[in-house]
Amino acid sequence: MKLGRLNHIGVATPSMEASIAYYRDVMGATKICEPFDLPAQGVRVCFVDTPGENGTNGTQIELIEPLGENSPIHGFIAKNPAGGQHHMCYEVPDIHEAKAWFEGLGKKVLGEPRIGAHGTLIFFVHPKDMNGVLTEIMETPKSGAGH
Amino acid sequence: MKLGRLNHIGVATPSMEASIAYYRDVMGATKICEPFDLPAQGVRVCFVDTPGENGTNGTQIELIEPLGENSPIHGFIAKNPAGGQHHMCYEVPDIHEAKAWFEGLGKKVLGEPRIGAHGTLIFFVHPKDMNGVLTEIMETPKSGAGH
Repeated sequence: MKLGRLNHIGVATPSMEASIAYYRDVMGATKICEPFDLPAQGVRVCFVDTPGENGTNGTQIELIEPLGENSPIHGFIAKNPAGGQHHMCYEVPDIHEAKAWFEGLGKKVLGEPRIGAHGTLIFFVHPKDMNGVLTEIMETPKSGAGH
Repeated sequence: MKLGRLNHIGVATPSMEASIAYYRDVMGATKICEPFDLPAQGVRVCFVDTPGENGTNGTQIELIEPLGENSPIHGFIAKNPAGGQHHMCYEVPDIHEAKAWFEGLGKKVLGEPRIGAHGTLIFFVHPKDMNGVLTEIMETPKSGAGH
């Protein structure tokens, strides 16, 4: 496998509203999407754009807030009440090839590929096998560069 | 302030050697710098490049390993023995203006600006004031886009 673009950094938050205000008023973000629910993942999501080099799109920040009682990020927020860095997401050209690659290396892929926040297939790999970082692998959207 | 480029994601590791092998052999990174010591910061550092859009430089991964007995990341590694995401670093055009901005908002800036891993002035802001994320602010290198 060849390292792909760092699509986004997932940042868990106990309050989407407060986090959006922080990125807008403290960090000076100007491109912040409307938050939306991803019930299948148990999270509410909002992307904050950062500028890349030469006018390109940079790595996004994906704010994630627990949605529903069974949200997989309740535990993270319980351990980190102020929120914090939750996962790193890299793009790949083919999600099934990527899954076979990680599984071939004995990495613990968490579930089958499913539709993620950008509308393409994604899966997560367990942090214990990934240098301590919960890692999301995402198929690059066909329409562009995964933004 | 206007949101700057996400220069790098700091990832703490108990073993620089194992982390470099991970990014090279599992994630497929091809541009990995030689590790070097930053004694003033108490860390050993290695940058892993990720590709940006259209051939630009993407956000880097800064691997940091404790250096010396007083390393500020000993506590993080004690809490996260496998390592993990440690900080996020944004570029700004002027480090002193940025410091005045954050202090004017009542944010806890940790120490005076000092030379960071890219050779320009940097400071950190306490995570409690920054949406739960330890945040590094770095002056963009004059020679280019902070890479």
